[in-house]
Amino acid sequence: MKNFIKDLNEKIMILDGAMGTEIQKRFEDPGINPELLNITQPDLIKSIHRDYEKAGSNIITSNTFGANGYKLEKSGYSVEEVVSRGIKNVKESTNAYCALDIGPIGVLINNDTKYDFDFAYGIFKEQIIAGRDAGCDLVLIETMTDIYEAKAAVLAAKENSDLPVICSMTLQENGRTLTGTDIVTIVSILESLGTDVIGLNCSFGPDEMIPFIEEMVKYSSKNIIVQPNAGLPKMIDGVTVFDLGPEEYASTMARIKDLGVNVLGGCCGTTPDHIRAFKDNIKDFSPTEVVKKDYTFVSSSTKTIVVDGIAIIGERINPTGKKKLKEAIKNHDLEYIAGLAKKQEKEGADILDINVGVPGIDESKTMEDVIMEVSKHSTLPLQIDSSDYDAIENALRKYNGKAMVNSVNGKQESLENILPLIQKYGCCVVGLTMDDDGIPGKSSERFDIAKKIVEEAEKYGIERKDIFIDCLTLTASAQQEDVFDTLVALSRVKKEIGAKTCLGVSNVSFGLPERDLLTTAFLTSALAMGLDAPIMNPASESSMDAIRAFKVLKNIDRDSADYIEFYKDTSRTTKETAEKPIPESEMTL
Amino acid sequence: MKNFIKDLNEKIMILDGAMGTEIQKRFEDPGINPELLNITQPDLIKSIHRDYEKAGSNIITSNTFGANGYKLEKSGYSVEEVVSRGIKNVKESTNAYCALDIGPIGVLINNDTKYDFDFAYGIFKEQIIAGRDAGCDLVLIETMTDIYEAKAAVLAAKENSDLPVICSMTLQENGRTLTGTDIVTIVSILESLGTDVIGLNCSFGPDEMIPFIEEMVKYSSKNIIVQPNAGLPKMIDGVTVFDLGPEEYASTMARIKDLGVNVLGGCCGTTPDHIRAFKDNIKDFSPTEVVKKDYTFVSSSTKTIVVDGIAIIGERINPTGKKKLKEAIKNHDLEYIAGLAKKQEKEGADILDINVGVPGIDESKTMEDVIMEVSKHSTLPLQIDSSDYDAIENALRKYNGKAMVNSVNGKQESLENILPLIQKYGCCVVGLTMDDDGIPGKSSERFDIAKKIVEEAEKYGIERKDIFIDCLTLTASAQQEDVFDTLVALSRVKKEIGAKTCLGVSNVSFGLPERDLLTTAFLTSALAMGLDAPIMNPASESSMDAIRAFKVLKNIDRDSADYIEFYKDTSRTTKETAEKPIPESEMTL
Ligand SMILES: [Zn+2]
Ligand SMILES: [Zn+2]
Ligand SMILES: [Zn+2]
Repeated sequence: MKNFIKDLNEKIMILDGAMGTEIQKRFEDPGINPELLNITQPDLIKSIHRDYEKAGSNIITSNTFGANGYKLEKSGYSVEEVVSRGIKNVKESTNAYCALDIGPIGVLINNDTKYDFDFAYGIFKEQIIAGRDAGCDLVLIETMTDIYEAKAAVLAAKENSDLPVICSMTLQENGRTLTGTDIVTIVSILESLGTDVIGLNCSFGPDEMIPFIEEMVKYSSKNIIVQPNAGLPKMIDGVTVFDLGPEEYASTMARIKDLGVNVLGGCCGTTPDHIRAFKDNIKDFSPTEVVKKDYTFVSSSTKTIVVDGIAIIGERINPTGKKKLKEAIKNHDLEYIAGLAKKQEKEGADILDINVGVPGIDESKTMEDVIMEVSKHSTLPLQIDSSDYDAIENALRKYNGKAMVNSVNGKQESLENILPLIQKYGCCVVGLTMDDDGIPGKSSERFDIAKKIVEEAEKYGIERKDIFIDCLTLTASAQQEDVFDTLVALSRVKKEIGAKTCLGVSNVSFGLPERDLLTTAFLTSALAMGLDAPIMNPASESSMDAIRAFKVLKNIDRDSADYIEFYKDTSRTTKETAEKPIPESEMTL
Repeated sequence: MKNFIKDLNEKIMILDGAMGTEIQKRFEDPGINPELLNITQPDLIKSIHRDYEKAGSNIITSNTFGANGYKLEKSGYSVEEVVSRGIKNVKESTNAYCALDIGPIGVLINNDTKYDFDFAYGIFKEQIIAGRDAGCDLVLIETMTDIYEAKAAVLAAKENSDLPVICSMTLQENGRTLTGTDIVTIVSILESLGTDVIGLNCSFGPDEMIPFIEEMVKYSSKNIIVQPNAGLPKMIDGVTVFDLGPEEYASTMARIKDLGVNVLGGCCGTTPDHIRAFKDNIKDFSPTEVVKKDYTFVSSSTKTIVVDGIAIIGERINPTGKKKLKEAIKNHDLEYIAGLAKKQEKEGADILDINVGVPGIDESKTMEDVIMEVSKHSTLPLQIDSSDYDAIENALRKYNGKAMVNSVNGKQESLENILPLIQKYGCCVVGLTMDDDGIPGKSSERFDIAKKIVEEAEKYGIERKDIFIDCLTLTASAQQEDVFDTLVALSRVKKEIGAKTCLGVSNVSFGLPERDLLTTAFLTSALAMGLDAPIMNPASESSMDAIRAFKVLKNIDRDSADYIEFYKDTSRTTKETAEKPIPESEMTL
């Protein structure tokens, strides 16, 4: 029995090279759909597969790159026919792993059109079922320029097969995909979906790819695939050619392997000679060990917040106590809500909480619409905040990014409903330290609930780095004796459990004068005790001041650069600063 | 061999009662100095001692209450003669412990007159040497109305003998001594000096004493002595009489014993019948176990700061970087300095740092003068801040209170010079986490120095509760990567060592804009991580705001009473507080 994942851990895997180049060499006019050659010229296709296997490939890609319902619509052939014949051609001609090749659909996914997420999912599902039923060994989603389309493809593969899934993106020169996704976000989103191997292909020759590969290796916890073109394309006599020869290609591919890439192949312009040359160049076929990274990512499609300093979660898109927002949600006034998002981004939020919990609306539909609208106006990653499981699942499915979910708690019913969603969509989750008995006053009991949540989550494979425990702020005017216990519990969660922490801070001051003063003191205390993600109003000057200052103290704002930039021109002076500062040489000890 | 301290741990000790009352019964005219009867009427005095021993006393007090150089000046007898005969009379007539009785000198101690601290010390020293040489078993300093005089007496006893020392104060109806010392301050100062047994006598009958005894038991870690009068004094036919009979006296004394008092006797108006009655009333002679209390006291003569919340150490009496104060110190302008003290007390300081380190002055003399002057104008306890060991020792000796010393550090030379002073004067001490190699950047090394200081201090019997570790604030503009390590070390010192912590916070922001913002964030972070005593400028509004807020969060300011009182009328409003507050019923979780 072939076992791709096991083999992957034991040896460097070699893919094949270009199909198009080889077809051109052997056949005059491939027509619009080269995939139709699977049916019309199976021997030609098989000969190419065979040549690649002979050259040293142990993964052979089926000739199915464009074999999807959109491109084949007027071809007279069904997806099932083309794909199954494509898979058959690989299996009948080689003993290598057969990769079901899936390229972009050929139309931009846009939820405002009929070519929406569900459409894309349907297209990929059809391909995958056909490939699966024809007996492919793995799914190779490649040359993707839109991470949203890639998400649809990976989800379709995961939901409709047990096959290993490789997903490889294509970058522009600026290091982002056509739709603006940068490398760390590619890593974040593809890994969140459980993609087995992620990587880059096409666009560049191997040399140009190196800096992007280095960045991917830095952030990724998965095996990486790289398939460069045979150099940068050149126009010769009106034809695009790739003229990097096998030897030069091979020498850079050896360097790429040494960067930690365990799955290597070629893209446009590469030939069996390129594959042979770089395979011959490899001395040691033991793969580089894949190191699990400890980064906590929360991502939109174009921006990833790596939570290793302080991530501010803007709390304002939450109708609790906000009459105007309640009305906007009821009236589907998406522009108003998007305005709140833009404002919070400008004020310094890193992540936006999205809560549309108003009675009498279709929460699932409203949440989806709000998320889509906010995503158009703000680059910030989102936190899906709801108590409606369907609304959460739908939002996670449609969201173009790696979201946070607010929240799970210690109740059995909550754990059972939320954790499978977190696992499936690979997002971050907020865990509230409360259960059927409410919020315990004592820190040790809140810590115990946090521990239970983390342990339950681990049964689903959800890692601690993706769990934000919220030890729940109490109101000083009502439960003063337990207020600081929230922070004691938070500190223990950080140290003893190693989970992330978040906390809504403003409730602490409810009912007391000078609320900002109390809220800021509580926020600063929480940061000192290890808070990663305050859930707060970024319009609060004193809270933002405190965070800027704390980032200096904690060496997050290196050389106080942001702090100095922000405050260098402020005219605020106080008695203390108005005094002559103490010369350093005279400072008391 | 008699061993008073050992006996004290094994049984209730019974003193005798009044001497004066008994003399009046047996002899017509005692004259001005009843102590002269030791020489002129030894049999009379011996008969009284004998009667008390028969009644059940196992400590007999020598007839030497007023046998001091001031009162005997014109008597024609030397202190040595009167005291040695007084001791002899006890020893020749009883087998009980012989207590050298020492009462107040008879003139108010005032350092601005010739009756200064050194005078008082000399008077007591003379009595103690005489008593010691005559073979007394312990020193009983009693009926003291001035804690400063009591300090001179206890120091004289400790420095001139190895005898157990009892010191008993006399209160007014308001629970303070004549010079304003309250019970907790009596406990703090007398225990700091190593007094073996502390307590109360005279002024009240046993019933009136009970609340004061309860308070003393609450705070004291020593055996307690109580000797009430035979009721409140009444004027009958122009003569003061105490008319509480033996039976009533005895029943209240039994209650007093049950409060945890292990040394009991009588004062004015009590007779051998009173002693017999209450001794007969005692069923169980096993003493109440003395519980070591964990309070950290810093005291002036009239105010004790119990450091269990946040104690603000006012930093402004320190000439570093302050031109005007430097001049004031050089010119001996004590009024200017006292003004800084008053101002800081008004602003909310709890303890005042006193540093007079200016080149070219007599630091020891200046420190003493400043301490004396500041003590006249402010009730706050003082922190003696100097690098001059002689100045520190002189200040500790003369200070009327239990001071803090700033500072000892990890250098051997510092430990060897400072710790014996801390031990002898029983004060609190600041331990700086630096040594011969300077201030280590890493928290673990600063923690190690803290541990070394505490362990060295314990060799001298100095308890952790009296040590304030200062993990030393670094400047963010110069050593940003180590700034937060100060707080990590602080937190470990609190948790793992159990010492107190102090920290000067303002240096953190040196050289950066908006210093108050950084200083306040650092202060709040330090409080969250366990800081007990910030050394700061109480004129800094933002720092004081942060402390008031933090006291609410940490439940130090119960029911936010002080906070509400302070801010209820402030007109400050911010965007956040101007918004409609979230109704409690709607608060998000
Ligand atoms: Zn390509
Ligand atoms: Zn008396
Ligand atoms: Zn004065």
